[in-house]
Amino acid sequence: MTYELYYWPMIPGRGEFVRLALEEAGADYIDVARRDGIAPMMKLLGDEKSARPSFAPPFLKAGRLMIGQTANILLFLGERHGLAPKDTPGRFWIHQLQLTLADVVAEAHDMHHPIGVGSYYEDQKPESKRRAAEFRRERIPKFLNYFERVLGKNRYFAGQKLTYADLSMFQVIEGLRYALPHRMKQLEKKYPKLMALSQRVKQRPRIAAYLASSRRISFNEDGIFRHYPELDS
Amino acid sequence: MTYELYYWPMIPGRGEFVRLALEEAGADYIDVARRDGIAPMMKLLGDEKSARPSFAPPFLKAGRLMIGQTANILLFLGERHGLAPKDTPGRFWIHQLQLTLADVVAEAHDMHHPIGVGSYYEDQKPESKRRAAEFRRERIPKFLNYFERVLGKNRYFAGQKLTYADLSMFQVIEGLRYALPHRMKQLEKKYPKLMALSQRVKQRPRIAAYLASSRRISFNEDGIFRHYPELDS
Repeated sequence: MTYELYYWPMIPGRGEFVRLALEEAGADYIDVARRDGIAPMMKLLGDEKSARPSFAPPFLKAGRLMIGQTANILLFLGERHGLAPKDTPGRFWIHQLQLTLADVVAEAHDMHHPIGVGSYYEDQKPESKRRAAEFRRERIPKFLNYFERVLGKNRYFAGQKLTYADLSMFQVIEGLRYALPHRMKQLEKKYPKLMALSQRVKQRPRIAAYLASSRRISFNEDGIFRHYPELDS
Repeated sequence: MTYELYYWPMIPGRGEFVRLALEEAGADYIDVARRDGIAPMMKLLGDEKSARPSFAPPFLKAGRLMIGQTANILLFLGERHGLAPKDTPGRFWIHQLQLTLADVVAEAHDMHHPIGVGSYYEDQKPESKRRAAEFRRERIPKFLNYFERVLGKNRYFAGQKLTYADLSMFQVIEGLRYALPHRMKQLEKKYPKLMALSQRVKQRPRIAAYLASSRRISFNEDGIFRHYPELDS
């Protein structure tokens, strides 16, 4: 079966967490909007006949199944492709970490859109500077302290075996590095375990091949992790 | 087994979504911080020896299992207490709706904290007014349109049988009504199906008994759904 991933074609965004899982799983998938433009995606989102549409991209078509919400898609792919523990405590633990990573992603987004998604960054710059200051000083260390602590001496969050939450952690670290290189340079040495995990993910053969391919979309200023130098100091 | 729920004792907040599920399930539970204060909760959050701590409340202790993140706790309780479909499509669909409701909750919170959680509402009032305008005009209708549409002719989101997402939808509607009574009065008539679902939830015997009890905490201005008249017009 070939999966169909529906997501904005020009940004890594939330779709990237799904792409990383599909790539690590070695799954067959079509990144639909990159191949065919966004029309089919918009049709599925707006289709009155669709019984279980998503509120927003990303969503994944898996045969007759249509699944939305990033963490939910990963829960599904994790079960199907061995990217999550099978035991009850491990299964819920990894999903808990994923949802906490989703909170980081939302805050990274709100850094440049504190007033709302309906207006441009350029129209909310002073507010963004205030919000970014708190994100840099308080929130990033709080989140990274947490993830460093729960990783502990484990190779990956669930122990020896990689899960979708490790892939997402890698992407969050990469995103923060892109958005806030100055701040992250100060912080990275405080999180040696997370940095090692990130490195481990990066070097996995399928991930390494993916990152070197044209399928990987670079971070940019239309996405969630944006580099605006004025928000980095 | 008696569950232990850990959440801030003075607000409905995110803990309320868990309380509603526990009440509907008729589960035995202790709302720990309401009985013993927040010290035990803070200890569990900060305990270096705890292998799988939560980043923030709410979290639930179920025997030796400790589970955090609201939607994740509901996923767990849903499986255990028949508050979610058992089939794969239904299971992921209900979780998808829950995560979309979590997005509404986050936006309802950010309405009065657009600049960040580190400063008071009083220190971000002009920004809150701007953010609230977009939330009222654009975001609430967009979310409610979506939920009304996916509910369709069903009694509950999954069909005939109540799930945790229906309980959460009820709480979100109650929260929006409390926070933005003026705006919700304009909007409610556009969403007859959601209003009927909400009424159905409210009248379930266990929920009705809970709402009439002292266990139910009223909405207030320390919580997520806050009523600031200046944000409602």
